[in-house]
Amino acid sequence: MSQPLRLGIAGLGTVGVGVVKIIQQQADLLTMRTGRPVTISAISARSRGKDRGVDLSAYAWEDDPVALAKRDDVDVYVELMGGSNGPAKASTLAALDAGKDVVTANKALLALHGQMLAEKAEAAGRVIRYEAAVAGGIPVIKALTEGLAGNKIARVMGVMNGTCNYILTRMEATGQGYNALFDEANKLGYLEADPNLDVGGIDAGHKLSLLSSIAFGTQVDFDGVELEGIQRITLEDIRAAADMGYRVKLLGVAQMTERGLEQRMSPCLVPADSPLGQLEGGTNMVVIEGDSVGQIVLRGAGAGEGPTASAVMGDICDVARGFRYPVFGQPASTLAQAPRAQSATPAPYYLRMSLRDKPGALAKVASVLGEAGVSIHRMRQYDHVDDIAPVLLVTHETTRADLDTALEGIANTDAVTGAPVALRIETV
Amino acid sequence: MSQPLRLGIAGLGTVGVGVVKIIQQQADLLTMRTGRPVTISAISARSRGKDRGVDLSAYAWEDDPVALAKRDDVDVYVELMGGSNGPAKASTLAALDAGKDVVTANKALLALHGQMLAEKAEAAGRVIRYEAAVAGGIPVIKALTEGLAGNKIARVMGVMNGTCNYILTRMEATGQGYNALFDEANKLGYLEADPNLDVGGIDAGHKLSLLSSIAFGTQVDFDGVELEGIQRITLEDIRAAADMGYRVKLLGVAQMTERGLEQRMSPCLVPADSPLGQLEGGTNMVVIEGDSVGQIVLRGAGAGEGPTASAVMGDICDVARGFRYPVFGQPASTLAQAPRAQSATPAPYYLRMSLRDKPGALAKVASVLGEAGVSIHRMRQYDHVDDIAPVLLVTHETTRADLDTALEGIANTDAVTGAPVALRIETV
Repeated sequence: MSQPLRLGIAGLGTVGVGVVKIIQQQADLLTMRTGRPVTISAISARSRGKDRGVDLSAYAWEDDPVALAKRDDVDVYVELMGGSNGPAKASTLAALDAGKDVVTANKALLALHGQMLAEKAEAAGRVIRYEAAVAGGIPVIKALTEGLAGNKIARVMGVMNGTCNYILTRMEATGQGYNALFDEANKLGYLEADPNLDVGGIDAGHKLSLLSSIAFGTQVDFDGVELEGIQRITLEDIRAAADMGYRVKLLGVAQMTERGLEQRMSPCLVPADSPLGQLEGGTNMVVIEGDSVGQIVLRGAGAGEGPTASAVMGDICDVARGFRYPVFGQPASTLAQAPRAQSATPAPYYLRMSLRDKPGALAKVASVLGEAGVSIHRMRQYDHVDDIAPVLLVTHETTRADLDTALEGIANTDAVTGAPVALRIETV
Repeated sequence: MSQPLRLGIAGLGTVGVGVVKIIQQQADLLTMRTGRPVTISAISARSRGKDRGVDLSAYAWEDDPVALAKRDDVDVYVELMGGSNGPAKASTLAALDAGKDVVTANKALLALHGQMLAEKAEAAGRVIRYEAAVAGGIPVIKALTEGLAGNKIARVMGVMNGTCNYILTRMEATGQGYNALFDEANKLGYLEADPNLDVGGIDAGHKLSLLSSIAFGTQVDFDGVELEGIQRITLEDIRAAADMGYRVKLLGVAQMTERGLEQRMSPCLVPADSPLGQLEGGTNMVVIEGDSVGQIVLRGAGAGEGPTASAVMGDICDVARGFRYPVFGQPASTLAQAPRAQSATPAPYYLRMSLRDKPGALAKVASVLGEAGVSIHRMRQYDHVDDIAPVLLVTHETTRADLDTALEGIANTDAVTGAPVALRIETV
């Protein structure tokens, strides 16, 4: 029997408790699979006395995660506190300094400090593993870094925030508006302490930036992610999209093009009958496109105690088995600065506008679109209500620049009231 | 720079050529990702002169794969010839004897000789990797063995033969019968030299037996797979299933129950709106259910040069990175003999029968079902044609034994003509 792999676990929220439970309940299985016992030496959390439903009496306690990270009886520091700075960052750095490997579920920490941490870890000969940081229980980082290592990756897409997908799919299912479902999600405890992390797309953007880095061999560039949340999505848009065969998803897309690296996290329309379109509730999905493998689709629970703990355990088992490789799949020193694309790949767009009941109003809209070089693929005008007629358009493929010219032109006519809504239709 | 990883590749069919192409075209990427060059020392195939569209002049040639497997300048023997015996087996054994690691796409070899090969490899301290043997480009063995290593697996399901799924989905789409689409698949080159490997479910059964072993820590037991092909599936069944909200799939299910290990590869009904139900054409899908992770769904191309070569390369990259673990995820010596279940988990069933146009015929059928303890969930009787009325039934959950009693009883009445068709409805 080999030496045990000894963990120090910081953070005993849902995920931390889930990890402790697996280690306690599946000890034999883990030993069989990794060839050595996986044990916990010490733990750290905010409140020592709190009853978490697991027996923690066998583990040493540290009030300070930095002290935990440095302990001699810890081989792997498991950081499950979250937060891009403060104790999470300080303790991760301390762990690397002390020659420990790190397993973390912290997307924000890596999205904002990934390059620095990777350089530090690799200089020290340590690994940082973070499967749980992206798409919960889905082993997507493993698939991308290892299983598809023979592929040049063309595009990575995904629905990676379960809360947003819950709100969007419930809007369609119940006919309730965004605000009502935001409140419902809040009551159910689905929202982060700062809800903007979820509905603003930031959390999902963090995840996308990590996948981008692995896929394209570029330094994590969260600031390069074009971010748009779901707050502006109305029931009207969801219904109109459904009417035209689409669903609205908060979709992340990272793609390397001749114009550079595009990273977008924004509400998009996808075909209702595509795997992404059919994704309901809190489930996550990641789509990876490689030059050899074609399209791979991975689907599973994006959050929750069990799924996230499963991902953390996958990383721990890899470390126990002695798997070691650079944090982003190739040495941090070889990661190129992400070449941000100045414009998005052309796509069809969905437009919704409120047409005034005036002769020639629709002609004006059509003519402004035509002048901007945006051609119309499909159009529907609905009945006037209070002298306003909803008009839905699906354009042919167009650049965002041409579309913006058209949108500005349309807003400057007296044909519509309010600003038109424009959503990208992503080809999946 | 570390030492190169030197390959000997046996078999230059579609997959072998695909692997050579990736190694030639992505050399820099592979070196960056694995930390060392991946090179080819020597190759072997049936015909040396054949133009395969790749430049093979830099590699030594061996007529005999056994000689290739033993070469001093080969670190990893890549077996891409196929076949459960003959040269594939002999050369794999020779490679292990000579202290080489093995990467293979050969599902038959491992399904029939997996335990022996695993014991041999582990005694010699070598690895055998076989991602390409199951579900083409989908990194499912990696997901199961590594990513989900913290889970007790409850069930693994999958559509793992693209040819069968092609035939079944084309039957529904075109309204052509099984024979016509078998011929079409044959013309397109989708069928194995022995088509029964595909349509008889044997190929998919091989794959299922490998997933079972990893999932449940049991010795590969292909003989324990309950096999049924798609040859008996009629257009009527496909249409009737669609009518009732289902699709017919050649579905593999491996599940550990109190009664033992169930392994089935058979045509089943699955809900038309489930991920499995929506799978079209040659695409594969594997569903894994773990106690922590819940349900994970993986989807991708199940065959073809690029996808299969991608899987082979994933394994090669792992070996290059120094990842080493037992062939079936835990030491071969610890794998339990598969405890075959004597009966399948109860399930609802779909029944189709041809009712005679006689008073009381339906009552007889219903009463035989009732006596056997099989209760009816839904029933449809269609118009009589030539004194025969098609009747479709969906039962409530029942044991196969009770169902078989009922089917025998029904056949023994004069209420129906011909044997009723029964297909399991799998809960997904």
